[in-house]
Amino acid sequence: MSSELKEECGVFGVFNHPQAADLTYYGLHALQHRGQESAGIVASNGKTFKHHRGMGLVTQVFTRNILDGLKGNMAIGHVRYSTSGESLLQNAQPLVFKYIEGDLAVAHNGNLVNARIERNVLQQQGSIFQTTTDTEIIAHLIARSKKKHFDEAAPDILTRIDGSFALLIMTEKQMLIALDRHGLRPLSLGKIGEAIVVASETCALNAVDAKFWRDVEPGEWLLLDENGIQTGRFAQKEELSLCSFEFVYFARPDSVIQGRSVLSIRKELGQILAKEHPIQADVVVAVPDSSIPAAIGFSQQAGIPYEMGLIKNPYAGRSFIEPTQELRELAVRLKLSAVQEIIEGKRVVLVDDSIVRGTTSKRIVQLIRQAGAKEVHVRISSPMVRNPCFYGIDMPTKEELFANALEHEQAMGQAIGADTLAFLSTEGLLEAVDVNLAETSTRCIACFSGAYPTKLYLE
Amino acid sequence: MSSELKEECGVFGVFNHPQAADLTYYGLHALQHRGQESAGIVASNGKTFKHHRGMGLVTQVFTRNILDGLKGNMAIGHVRYSTSGESLLQNAQPLVFKYIEGDLAVAHNGNLVNARIERNVLQQQGSIFQTTTDTEIIAHLIARSKKKHFDEAAPDILTRIDGSFALLIMTEKQMLIALDRHGLRPLSLGKIGEAIVVASETCALNAVDAKFWRDVEPGEWLLLDENGIQTGRFAQKEELSLCSFEFVYFARPDSVIQGRSVLSIRKELGQILAKEHPIQADVVVAVPDSSIPAAIGFSQQAGIPYEMGLIKNPYAGRSFIEPTQELRELAVRLKLSAVQEIIEGKRVVLVDDSIVRGTTSKRIVQLIRQAGAKEVHVRISSPMVRNPCFYGIDMPTKEELFANALEHEQAMGQAIGADTLAFLSTEGLLEAVDVNLAETSTRCIACFSGAYPTKLYLE
Amino acid sequence: MSSELKEECGVFGVFNHPQAADLTYYGLHALQHRGQESAGIVASNGKTFKHHRGMGLVTQVFTRNILDGLKGNMAIGHVRYSTSGESLLQNAQPLVFKYIEGDLAVAHNGNLVNARIERNVLQQQGSIFQTTTDTEIIAHLIARSKKKHFDEAAPDILTRIDGSFALLIMTEKQMLIALDRHGLRPLSLGKIGEAIVVASETCALNAVDAKFWRDVEPGEWLLLDENGIQTGRFAQKEELSLCSFEFVYFARPDSVIQGRSVLSIRKELGQILAKEHPIQADVVVAVPDSSIPAAIGFSQQAGIPYEMGLIKNPYAGRSFIEPTQELRELAVRLKLSAVQEIIEGKRVVLVDDSIVRGTTSKRIVQLIRQAGAKEVHVRISSPMVRNPCFYGIDMPTKEELFANALEHEQAMGQAIGADTLAFLSTEGLLEAVDVNLAETSTRCIACFSGAYPTKLYLE
Amino acid sequence: MSSELKEECGVFGVFNHPQAADLTYYGLHALQHRGQESAGIVASNGKTFKHHRGMGLVTQVFTRNILDGLKGNMAIGHVRYSTSGESLLQNAQPLVFKYIEGDLAVAHNGNLVNARIERNVLQQQGSIFQTTTDTEIIAHLIARSKKKHFDEAAPDILTRIDGSFALLIMTEKQMLIALDRHGLRPLSLGKIGEAIVVASETCALNAVDAKFWRDVEPGEWLLLDENGIQTGRFAQKEELSLCSFEFVYFARPDSVIQGRSVLSIRKELGQILAKEHPIQADVVVAVPDSSIPAAIGFSQQAGIPYEMGLIKNPYAGRSFIEPTQELRELAVRLKLSAVQEIIEGKRVVLVDDSIVRGTTSKRIVQLIRQAGAKEVHVRISSPMVRNPCFYGIDMPTKEELFANALEHEQAMGQAIGADTLAFLSTEGLLEAVDVNLAETSTRCIACFSGAYPTKLYLE
Repeated sequence: MSSELKEECGVFGVFNHPQAADLTYYGLHALQHRGQESAGIVASNGKTFKHHRGMGLVTQVFTRNILDGLKGNMAIGHVRYSTSGESLLQNAQPLVFKYIEGDLAVAHNGNLVNARIERNVLQQQGSIFQTTTDTEIIAHLIARSKKKHFDEAAPDILTRIDGSFALLIMTEKQMLIALDRHGLRPLSLGKIGEAIVVASETCALNAVDAKFWRDVEPGEWLLLDENGIQTGRFAQKEELSLCSFEFVYFARPDSVIQGRSVLSIRKELGQILAKEHPIQADVVVAVPDSSIPAAIGFSQQAGIPYEMGLIKNPYAGRSFIEPTQELRELAVRLKLSAVQEIIEGKRVVLVDDSIVRGTTSKRIVQLIRQAGAKEVHVRISSPMVRNPCFYGIDMPTKEELFANALEHEQAMGQAIGADTLAFLSTEGLLEAVDVNLAETSTRCIACFSGAYPTKLYLE
Repeated sequence: MSSELKEECGVFGVFNHPQAADLTYYGLHALQHRGQESAGIVASNGKTFKHHRGMGLVTQVFTRNILDGLKGNMAIGHVRYSTSGESLLQNAQPLVFKYIEGDLAVAHNGNLVNARIERNVLQQQGSIFQTTTDTEIIAHLIARSKKKHFDEAAPDILTRIDGSFALLIMTEKQMLIALDRHGLRPLSLGKIGEAIVVASETCALNAVDAKFWRDVEPGEWLLLDENGIQTGRFAQKEELSLCSFEFVYFARPDSVIQGRSVLSIRKELGQILAKEHPIQADVVVAVPDSSIPAAIGFSQQAGIPYEMGLIKNPYAGRSFIEPTQELRELAVRLKLSAVQEIIEGKRVVLVDDSIVRGTTSKRIVQLIRQAGAKEVHVRISSPMVRNPCFYGIDMPTKEELFANALEHEQAMGQAIGADTLAFLSTEGLLEAVDVNLAETSTRCIACFSGAYPTKLYLE
Repeated sequence: MSSELKEECGVFGVFNHPQAADLTYYGLHALQHRGQESAGIVASNGKTFKHHRGMGLVTQVFTRNILDGLKGNMAIGHVRYSTSGESLLQNAQPLVFKYIEGDLAVAHNGNLVNARIERNVLQQQGSIFQTTTDTEIIAHLIARSKKKHFDEAAPDILTRIDGSFALLIMTEKQMLIALDRHGLRPLSLGKIGEAIVVASETCALNAVDAKFWRDVEPGEWLLLDENGIQTGRFAQKEELSLCSFEFVYFARPDSVIQGRSVLSIRKELGQILAKEHPIQADVVVAVPDSSIPAAIGFSQQAGIPYEMGLIKNPYAGRSFIEPTQELRELAVRLKLSAVQEIIEGKRVVLVDDSIVRGTTSKRIVQLIRQAGAKEVHVRISSPMVRNPCFYGIDMPTKEELFANALEHEQAMGQAIGADTLAFLSTEGLLEAVDVNLAETSTRCIACFSGAYPTKLYLE
Repeated sequence: MSSELKEECGVFGVFNHPQAADLTYYGLHALQHRGQESAGIVASNGKTFKHHRGMGLVTQVFTRNILDGLKGNMAIGHVRYSTSGESLLQNAQPLVFKYIEGDLAVAHNGNLVNARIERNVLQQQGSIFQTTTDTEIIAHLIARSKKKHFDEAAPDILTRIDGSFALLIMTEKQMLIALDRHGLRPLSLGKIGEAIVVASETCALNAVDAKFWRDVEPGEWLLLDENGIQTGRFAQKEELSLCSFEFVYFARPDSVIQGRSVLSIRKELGQILAKEHPIQADVVVAVPDSSIPAAIGFSQQAGIPYEMGLIKNPYAGRSFIEPTQELRELAVRLKLSAVQEIIEGKRVVLVDDSIVRGTTSKRIVQLIRQAGAKEVHVRISSPMVRNPCFYGIDMPTKEELFANALEHEQAMGQAIGADTLAFLSTEGLLEAVDVNLAETSTRCIACFSGAYPTKLYLE
């Protein structure tokens, strides 16, 4: 159940639109699933910035009054998930700086693998940092670039950073859009009349009724200013290595990434899963909400009816008071409920998109059994997660990963109380996400395979 | 789309359990869909009350500290939706009073049709009111009853009130549970070991892992105290007239009401709808989330695949800053998104559970068409809503109701931009909700038919 | 130091002024010293009430938006201090009710000594209470009065209540002003053009630039409505028994009560104190702020210079985080500071307005000694407080009162570390507050003497 | 009335005390008068910082929980007043940075006159800024210093900054205390046992019961670490030019600056004022609270009784809803009240500490006249303010200054409605603040005389 994995961010930008900040607000609202910890918007009226950031959801951070104060026809915004820290608000993005050329705002989705090294170099040169984010490095690099003007300096420094980054950088008059050379994070462009819109996912383009234009290419940058759109590359065109977990879990199902509908891919994951691991059963049940498309795909392939055997409390997303020790066993029931009339006496295929720690899976299987299931067959629409992510996904340690604790699927199945348990194969995953296996992989599957597309700069 | 209709309340109570307030918190959390405006809990330790009420969701109103203060092994709670008012907090329930016998708390789901008359009688006798709720009347009647003690007074006054009421009344040592003579609102009993739990819906019993015991019968009361459970009737056993909208929209799909699973009934509504109004089409799409079961039922009956052609923004439930005039057309897009890959070039059956005002339906049809649908056939899994509800559902005026503005389905369909539009018949509804039509109706269908099960005391 | 005593309330009303709520806000701001726990305003536009109440200071409870919503040309307001309770907001005044004749709002400063008895009678008759205040009784009595209309019922019920009450009662169209038969609390009338203003103290009349008209008389009521001002009595004119602590400590020095400036009386208390208890000394120092007038009076009478030897932290009024055990001894220093240059080597007369518990006095004397005083002579500008107040002042129990713990002034002086300690005599107090001792006392001095002006209804 | 002038800051630090953050909280509470806009504390446990900053008063920014989280035996804190800005919280101090040597926190009272120039130099070198404060420059200079370690770098960079600064800089293990070469701002040292305390004013030393040790000297620095206290100078010992407005208005009267009690100096200002501008009158009245000591001095010198003719609303400090246009004339009355019994028929000497814009003075004179004064003679205990301050005091523009708008005292007196108006002479001021006029001035009187003690770096 991938709600145990946390995306790190979503970015959204608008260039050349009189309601730039309002559109950014709605765009971020559509990207809220990518980060719930903080939200921020910086707008520019061509002369100065107005910005606001806060802890919490987009709808909590902004009010009509605040939004009205964010005047200008350019804006960039950011939603963020983060591991906890003592002074979180400071780390909320977009980060805003003043440097010799004027104002600078940076919104970043991803993770720089050479952050520690670059930070050290910069500090050696006398730079001071106010955040603990890798994103601040980007501003320092621009300020220290030998290229004086932003339009030269910004593209230039992109060769200095490595890892994953879908990046929006704004000055009073210019906006730079860039994507790392591997295209590890999604980033798409849209248009509303003359205005340019950029978003982590196309669902945010839809939300503001922007027409999809194209995806940003790996290693590409775009510079938007009064002279129009200028594009360039800071890296050779490489094989795309987009994070496959975007397809499996993170992205909203109504987004289209690299030409593929996320919803359709999830259905296909379920279909391939049904082919790889067939089973005799009476009903297919999804762990809602993220696994529903895969369950429908499984159902259609296997010819077993899809039924809503698990119902999510519609308010389960809100953070509630956790049960005390005496009532601990209620934890799952407060979020999920099994429908006895559908499950009782049935052989149930339970489709989930992933298993990370395994604890939740165990509780859900138990819930299904208590509702009277005769058999419970768990099918996972992604391979076993065995390796940490260095590109922006917050994961448990290698030891905490369920797939590293037990050797065989059979032992794992027993551990979660299922009659059978099966994972999608890596080949199945790559088939669904449309990759020619003969060539270099064009999706990042490092968390499954351990093969990382970049240097890791560990030591 | 029934999100235009507002339920008025949910109630939950616990008797004889050391974590009474905690369980009530989780029970209310499970009933949150029945009322989002305010929440409250009153606990009794046998000697005094502790209570807390506030505006907002259960998760916003209570903190660990507050909950810890609500000591006692009895508690009742309430979630409320309400039309706006100047001093809303005062109207939040459970209402708490002091009268000659001690403390009194009242939690009420429903609407008293003779409230105006009884209130007038009480005021003539010198009663003063602090709320504008009909619920306050109940406390006054108890305080003025000639039966001195609560265990006699409380059952006695139930004959004085008419309309819909699922009612929990608590003193320091006793709890009274009662349901109106028509059983217009659901009310179910459960057990956790020796403890008794009562809830508007069984989904709340599940949430606290209570075992379902039975539904409260129309016209029945139960008195819980240290002597155990005493039951009685304040009215002859009449035909049950449970609100059919509970099945169509209000209740959570995982609840079981009067022996029927809400999810299954919704599926059946969709199946009957498919029989009554067949259509040639390529995909069945639901207006999420409430219409998904009916869409699945329609799909299974019609043999047309169910697909997730509309996706709801998972954060759409949060109140966000409404678009300004310039961006008004975004209103629907911020909540719903059509998946082009699924809809483009297709003949779409769009299943919704109801049409109230019609404005939202029109926008959704437009969204589907913009995504490239070849045809849009709207199917509604309930009959036309033509009459106001006097039993606790907040509805538009008769003039605002879509079904009263236009004469024929055909004209209605044109009005919302659909190729065809069809509603479930009243007979179809009653068939699904399991009623023997030869006898007196056993579901309230007043909003469809205009036949009200009680006197209305209008003029 | 009388900050250990807590006043219970302040009331303010405006009749016939288009900015009634705004003026009430400013009036309450001027009366804030009379109660800091909650504040509320009810306005009437002649047809309906608009009201708002909240916990905290006037400036915290109201915003421009809220105030703008309180439309109407009549308003009453209230500030309250109260002992703690679980549901404080409910007890915030003005209380608002609906009864047979319409809306009713009550703002009350004082304490009804027969509250318990009357409450019991009302509950026997079936009344229910939502607050734990004695004020709610007043509304019940009006609602149950045999006199039907408010203008008859309201004056009528005043004979039913005993104790202290400065009372404002408002309906949609009428306002009743009343003062208890002993005039235990101050209540003054003013005019702004055609508008009538009523306030607990004249400082609030000044704040809104109202011209002082006259004090309300003991046992008098005034009814203001469209027919003008009607006055009457519910009790024979009795000797005034105004609370002498209003003069000693509670009232603002710029108020005029019963024709006497509070500032001048406090100076006179200091002068008489100097005559009664002369001492050789170098400087007179006040415990700021309340004791400054008495210290100036003492200084002028004794011919010893008044100096600012103690300075109050100007932000000391704010509630701050209390020192932990390790830093406990800082408690006084955070509020008061002794000026060494003035005190060192001097014989100091320290003037305070009262001693209640004695603990603070002890710490202040210590502070003065640490600053180098050669001698410290404490002079208190009121007699020893020995008896509880039943008229609205929150006092320690009899056992906690400093004056009851020790027999002689000498022992008391030792207890607080002073070289000498002396209290003003009761005769001295009465002389300053302008009372002809040959007649019945015309000030309440019950807390000093134990002679209560009303029946106490204890048993 | 100097409440029209705004101090820019107060600083407080503790070294080597287990309750460092708690003491800092109380110290800042005592310095609250020096800045009400934001407050912050950084604590170090020798390894890492914990910090918290927020908008508002010390009592609003911190809770027990927050304070408990600020662990460590070193802490520095800051209270701030500031001109408005869009992102105020970012500018709140202490500023916290990470640089090559570790963590760095800076708290600064004063204003750097070469800030613009230094900032430009730093930006040319590639530095980026996150605040609009001059304080951030200090951190950059340290990070870029050629001296590697803090204990060398910090003293070194003090020669690079000019203007006024009372400065606390902290790393995980060290604290640097420094005062600008002119000693424009006060800064005093105290001891609590082995612990060192530093504060903008001695009133804060008193608050935490620290023993006064000595003032920091102009051009001096102190470095506190595990090796003890090291001191040095970054500038030759120059004549002290402490801001004279600290004596006139800013400092708390119970503070001692450079050996002089602020209270005594204020009294002396009043005495000299009485000698310079004698007048026949009946009472001396102060504009509370800041002018009371000068009024007492005037009274003692002139032999005219000091009376409390003006009373301040004790809650006037709270920000309240400003009167609307219709009630504009209430503005002064909500803060001040004239006591008629004292003023009526009298010749009044009204003592104020300064006139900045003149508008408030005019309203106060009017208030006194409305209370029946026969004559009003305004006496100001400081010279005319004619020049802007560049050292940290927020002043109106030169054109807005009352003393620049009118040529003669006589015209000024008429403008504010006084019978006579007189200002203290510069010589009188210097006499009171204890300066040998034959030598270089040892107080900054630039705002009166226009002679600035530093270069201004304007152009």
